[in-house]
Amino acid sequence: MKKKRMTNESIYADAVQVLPGGVSRNTIFHKPYPHYVAGAKGCIVTDIDGVERVDFANNMASLIHGHAYPPIVEAVTEQLKRGTAYTLATEIEVRYAQHLTSRAPDFDKIRFVNSGTEAVMGMVKAARAFTGKTKIAKAEGSYNGTYDYVEVSQVSSPENWGDLDHPNRNPLAYGTPPAVLDDVIVYPFNDIERTVALLDENADDIACVLIDPIPHRVGLFEATDEFVEAIYFWTRKNNALMVFDEVITFRTNYGGAQQNYRVAPDITALGKMIGGGFPVGAFAGRSDVMAVMDPNESPLRLPHSGTFSANPITMTAGYVAMQDFDEKALHKLNALTAKAISQIKEAIKVADIPMSISGTGSMFRLHPRNTTPKSYREAYQTAKEKVVMTKILDHLFYKENIIMVNTGTCMFSTVITQKEVDQLSQGMLNAFKAVRADLIDVHGEVHGKI
Amino acid sequence: MKKKRMTNESIYADAVQVLPGGVSRNTIFHKPYPHYVAGAKGCIVTDIDGVERVDFANNMASLIHGHAYPPIVEAVTEQLKRGTAYTLATEIEVRYAQHLTSRAPDFDKIRFVNSGTEAVMGMVKAARAFTGKTKIAKAEGSYNGTYDYVEVSQVSSPENWGDLDHPNRNPLAYGTPPAVLDDVIVYPFNDIERTVALLDENADDIACVLIDPIPHRVGLFEATDEFVEAIYFWTRKNNALMVFDEVITFRTNYGGAQQNYRVAPDITALGKMIGGGFPVGAFAGRSDVMAVMDPNESPLRLPHSGTFSANPITMTAGYVAMQDFDEKALHKLNALTAKAISQIKEAIKVADIPMSISGTGSMFRLHPRNTTPKSYREAYQTAKEKVVMTKILDHLFYKENIIMVNTGTCMFSTVITQKEVDQLSQGMLNAFKAVRADLIDVHGEVHGKI
Repeated sequence: MKKKRMTNESIYADAVQVLPGGVSRNTIFHKPYPHYVAGAKGCIVTDIDGVERVDFANNMASLIHGHAYPPIVEAVTEQLKRGTAYTLATEIEVRYAQHLTSRAPDFDKIRFVNSGTEAVMGMVKAARAFTGKTKIAKAEGSYNGTYDYVEVSQVSSPENWGDLDHPNRNPLAYGTPPAVLDDVIVYPFNDIERTVALLDENADDIACVLIDPIPHRVGLFEATDEFVEAIYFWTRKNNALMVFDEVITFRTNYGGAQQNYRVAPDITALGKMIGGGFPVGAFAGRSDVMAVMDPNESPLRLPHSGTFSANPITMTAGYVAMQDFDEKALHKLNALTAKAISQIKEAIKVADIPMSISGTGSMFRLHPRNTTPKSYREAYQTAKEKVVMTKILDHLFYKENIIMVNTGTCMFSTVITQKEVDQLSQGMLNAFKAVRADLIDVHGEVHGKI
Repeated sequence: MKKKRMTNESIYADAVQVLPGGVSRNTIFHKPYPHYVAGAKGCIVTDIDGVERVDFANNMASLIHGHAYPPIVEAVTEQLKRGTAYTLATEIEVRYAQHLTSRAPDFDKIRFVNSGTEAVMGMVKAARAFTGKTKIAKAEGSYNGTYDYVEVSQVSSPENWGDLDHPNRNPLAYGTPPAVLDDVIVYPFNDIERTVALLDENADDIACVLIDPIPHRVGLFEATDEFVEAIYFWTRKNNALMVFDEVITFRTNYGGAQQNYRVAPDITALGKMIGGGFPVGAFAGRSDVMAVMDPNESPLRLPHSGTFSANPITMTAGYVAMQDFDEKALHKLNALTAKAISQIKEAIKVADIPMSISGTGSMFRLHPRNTTPKSYREAYQTAKEKVVMTKILDHLFYKENIIMVNTGTCMFSTVITQKEVDQLSQGMLNAFKAVRADLIDVHGEVHGKI
């Protein structure tokens, strides 16, 4: 039987019959239809229609060495022949745990899971089990996975975000138990005074304060030293833990973004790149805290298992990826990203549009405004701004063959070179020129904000 | 540098330094140390010390074709060269979705996630988003993953399980928010009268009743037709959903255990074998319910994404596994498992010990009592019974080279043959004889129960 020639459009026509909205992940949803990958190699992704694009999204920051990285392909191909999962342990999980815990001084012990969502959920549960307390605090606007508690106020908007002194606790999903909201304190990121006041109001009940040190959806700017230290000392005083979500940000330094602060989190959630392209999550931290999961302890405070956790394929791929993401590779990657940022800033100047960039390490994000935002509420985009950003991203995707994260963000990989950076900054210049009129129009409207 | 010769013991000595209790999963924890796999092929697992064992656990039911199944190795090796994850879609997720939804008449749409835990969590959230209600009902003693709500009363014991008319809501983990308990109704499995009475008490607030149709940790016996139908009609009358956890049980029939009932669940959680040995979860069900995740809908009731969801490696492996697990393979596997059960029953008779077997399809579980239990409370093992069961499992593991699930359960794969079944039943006979005195001693003590 001759196989019908498939196109992005024809596959999507089949997809809508069997997947809600035709997609498995809302991230890849795109009108009029998502694009389907035929294959990818290095930083190039080829879709089913034969179009090649440069990948600056890297599956939401998870591919630190790009696609089909030869050392990973080789190692995984070998492991495949020996099996992918057992009801027994493997040496590779131990060796990889040794490696990861060696990267940050406060990673005494680590537990592997299957996704960032599971990592943050496990970490929150460990903090509760250790402190015996129930509530958590998280930043307004931050994305920390799909566990109900950390979803609270993930997409607060001017219509519902309320007073900054007491940001509203907005559920993300319909039917979220109202009690979930009672157990979450929503704090304004980097706002020490307001955050500490909010924590003080709930001092006896807080198990942990969750911080993403460079929260992508808040605006991709760093937690200040002062903010992190204020939270750290507050948690010391109040028998609470400070926990970091470094699922994305671990890529910014050899030992994660936490390396940049004088104080360290008690537990850290990891994910994305540490799987070497395979499903992964992990959380690492203080021995006494992680002991809540130790089956030798009686009572066992946090019974915790997972069929695919620490499977040898993910461990093998992740170990190769992280060994090769050494200090040298890290600094080279960060330097190239800094170069890209400076070239894009130049493009913004040339195009003469209200646009700014935030970010650090190997990641950055565009903001349709003159100065980089310093808070979630500043970074929040109006409907009209979102339309312009979508135009920019569509221009880049369709006309410049560039893939970015749908927030206007780039997550670099080590296989990107100056050539791709030039293509990116030139592509952005073209995109900026194409949307200049729209943007100036929006700009006028939101003048007070810029 | 010469590599040090590793042993199970020496690896574990390293493991305890970096993993809580030295393990990534409590399932594989074993005193004095867990065993580390050097490689596995078919139904044979070889540990680092060179000992070969027959695998009747198959990574907690997730390997339907055993280890390193050649068609999966081949297909995944090819996909590896084309990448493991993208920020775009893939055709394979659509084709696999078409296949899975074709297996059960009520799988209109499906969403893939990364684990059974994520599948059940997503399913519960979908039920809440669809109904706008908060509470769920779940069976006393059932394991449904690590989402707090479904963990309630997972390990209730005589000390805390309370009156059967109103089973206590016991948190699994320290620090579980008390409000979680308020949002969960714990019902006694297969007890129609009590369950319906409990549901009636909460009629206005129940989003879904969660049923594992053959719950492993309750005792691995089937939900009766009458029970499932009673729940079904109760949910129709009360604007609630009936949802199934078939993460394990989907293996029992071509379209899952649900194929055995006259009524169908609204949503079903899947996992384990549908990943072909790779991390996976999914939930499938009615179009109108699954539409809560459709990004075309406004408002979007359940925003839901996942970095590794529907990744092409899991989709490729899963699709191969499930295509090859067709009606013929299924019936052959179930027939061989039935043969094993009958041989083990014979071994029990010969050994003349109080022991029984429950189970169906390709799985069964031992119970240290004369008759198969009919409820969680009947199946619950005293400390002394647990000691005997551990002796049996240790005898099988160390002396007969047989791997089983630590509850005394076997989950067969299609690569097991009559030869391994004979080894299993003979091994059990030897184990039964070895523990006969202990068991009779316990038996005497728990006479009333048997």
